[in-house]
Amino acid sequence: MNADPAPPTFADIEAAARRIAGQAVVTPLLENAELNARVGGRVLIKAESLQVAGSFKFRGAYNRISRLSAAELARGVAAYSSGNHAQGVAAAARRLGAAAAVIVMPADAPAVKAAGARALGAEVIVYDRYTQSREAIGEALARERGMTLVPPFDDAHVIVGQGTVGLEMAAQAEAVGARLDDVLVCASGGGLTAGVALAMEALSPATRVFSVEPEVADDTRRSLAAGERLSNPPGTRSLCDALLTPTPGVLTFAINQPRLAGGLAVSDAEAAEAMRYAFRVLKLVLEPGGAVALAAVLTGKLATANRAIGVVASGGNVDPALFARVLTGEL
Amino acid sequence: MNADPAPPTFADIEAAARRIAGQAVVTPLLENAELNARVGGRVLIKAESLQVAGSFKFRGAYNRISRLSAAELARGVAAYSSGNHAQGVAAAARRLGAAAAVIVMPADAPAVKAAGARALGAEVIVYDRYTQSREAIGEALARERGMTLVPPFDDAHVIVGQGTVGLEMAAQAEAVGARLDDVLVCASGGGLTAGVALAMEALSPATRVFSVEPEVADDTRRSLAAGERLSNPPGTRSLCDALLTPTPGVLTFAINQPRLAGGLAVSDAEAAEAMRYAFRVLKLVLEPGGAVALAAVLTGKLATANRAIGVVASGGNVDPALFARVLTGEL
Repeated sequence: MNADPAPPTFADIEAAARRIAGQAVVTPLLENAELNARVGGRVLIKAESLQVAGSFKFRGAYNRISRLSAAELARGVAAYSSGNHAQGVAAAARRLGAAAAVIVMPADAPAVKAAGARALGAEVIVYDRYTQSREAIGEALARERGMTLVPPFDDAHVIVGQGTVGLEMAAQAEAVGARLDDVLVCASGGGLTAGVALAMEALSPATRVFSVEPEVADDTRRSLAAGERLSNPPGTRSLCDALLTPTPGVLTFAINQPRLAGGLAVSDAEAAEAMRYAFRVLKLVLEPGGAVALAAVLTGKLATANRAIGVVASGGNVDPALFARVLTGEL
Repeated sequence: MNADPAPPTFADIEAAARRIAGQAVVTPLLENAELNARVGGRVLIKAESLQVAGSFKFRGAYNRISRLSAAELARGVAAYSSGNHAQGVAAAARRLGAAAAVIVMPADAPAVKAAGARALGAEVIVYDRYTQSREAIGEALARERGMTLVPPFDDAHVIVGQGTVGLEMAAQAEAVGARLDDVLVCASGGGLTAGVALAMEALSPATRVFSVEPEVADDTRRSLAAGERLSNPPGTRSLCDALLTPTPGVLTFAINQPRLAGGLAVSDAEAAEAMRYAFRVLKLVLEPGGAVALAAVLTGKLATANRAIGVVASGGNVDPALFARVLTGEL
């Protein structure tokens, strides 16, 4: 596979949509009367928790791996991931016939994410999130074993794969007569926000796209405000284990910077409360990182009255024990 | 409103679908690769947990109340319910402008169900499920206050409202290229099974429809086998609080008896395990009664290899504390 230096375009998202068709789930865009009444507007929830392997990550991973040659597939793929990309890569690698999938994953990733990747046939190698570089480990692995590294976000094929979330969302919103004023998307490395922003720019240019992050890991929000890539302090911890990438990607930030309307952030407590709301009212299982966009709506981080807001509920891979603690209010 | 002695027909389901359009959620028919791989067939899950008020009950309640005259609406509606019908009636009554909704609900119903009905504007009156007759209390209430009683299942308008689940399911299955071999539907009074059976008879006559119940409250299974309405022992208890109606309805049994392929039953432990599976793999919040049809598939109560099985996940109204206990394996 050749490197693709050209920045991705909307046409690439359309091509990705054709490639993942029949493999990825066209996740429903859900609307709930109680939620609408609470915020005084329309909230349309793109339930990526219902995606293959429980998060949007399958889209980008499948699109990226589908571009590999037979020889590359025969050598296998590698990835570093906090857990959702791991499972997405493992599921895509198996479906596309890759000989092997090796995932470098933090030792404190949710057990359900490591188990999920292993159940999908991946080999999981753990590292210490707070002292070791996953990029270095992943790249060394790829080099030593001749595997192709599937980057979690800073890759054109991955970004346009995630962009199919926006493509579907725009069409589904139109089908229910909603003109999206704002779309809220969680951000870690920024691949999902970049893909969704590219799709919205083409399909619904008046729609504002916002990133949403944990308050303690708000590198995208600060980077957008500063106009340059800033980092979170080393060792940053949050309930939102999926959203701890220390800094925006180079390619993702180049796409996001001119296109996002701004960055929002929520506390861990607000994310937990959104998980409880999703359980009680929406009947959806969301992981902490998958609930931050909903949390931003529930806590009024932006105006909702008489507006139509798209919310990406990005994933639902959460350990039962942690979910139980959130439900009982312990977290 | 006049009594309607004619048994309901498929045309009545089509009319109900037009009446609830724009009010009820067209719930998604979900398919999960991991579940398909596990059972060696296709499982298509009709996620009625995502319905207004968290269960299919809104459909029948809305269809029934929409037939009331302005004078009847001005006197209000009453219902007896273990909780899901309560919330469905409360939501429908509010939307259709009924002056009041009074619900008779067992004292040990999940708190979330009583709270849900109250939040939707209903007045909740509690009774003892094990010593008092909810029918008698409900009918007395309706008589004293001049309210119209909205029956939970044994009513043609309610049955055809629930039948819209089957109508949608048949169309959604066809849209994904599945020819449903079997459809599994939980049964309490039998309204949902009756409606779905009527829809399938018209739209997919080769599809077998089965009821699924808790083992301890398998009145429908035994009644189908015996060819007459049999009852559960008084005081029967189950984790599946929504499925404890003591005996099949007269009208529902007349519809179900010649149309259902048979009755299945699962233990409380199997229902709890299905709730955990729905959490872990499907990312859906299901209540115990909402998980019994899935439990029947997961436990191999009928053959699944190379078959397409429709599963109605009927509701997701479950107390957080109970859900937490199920997740941690305590239940």
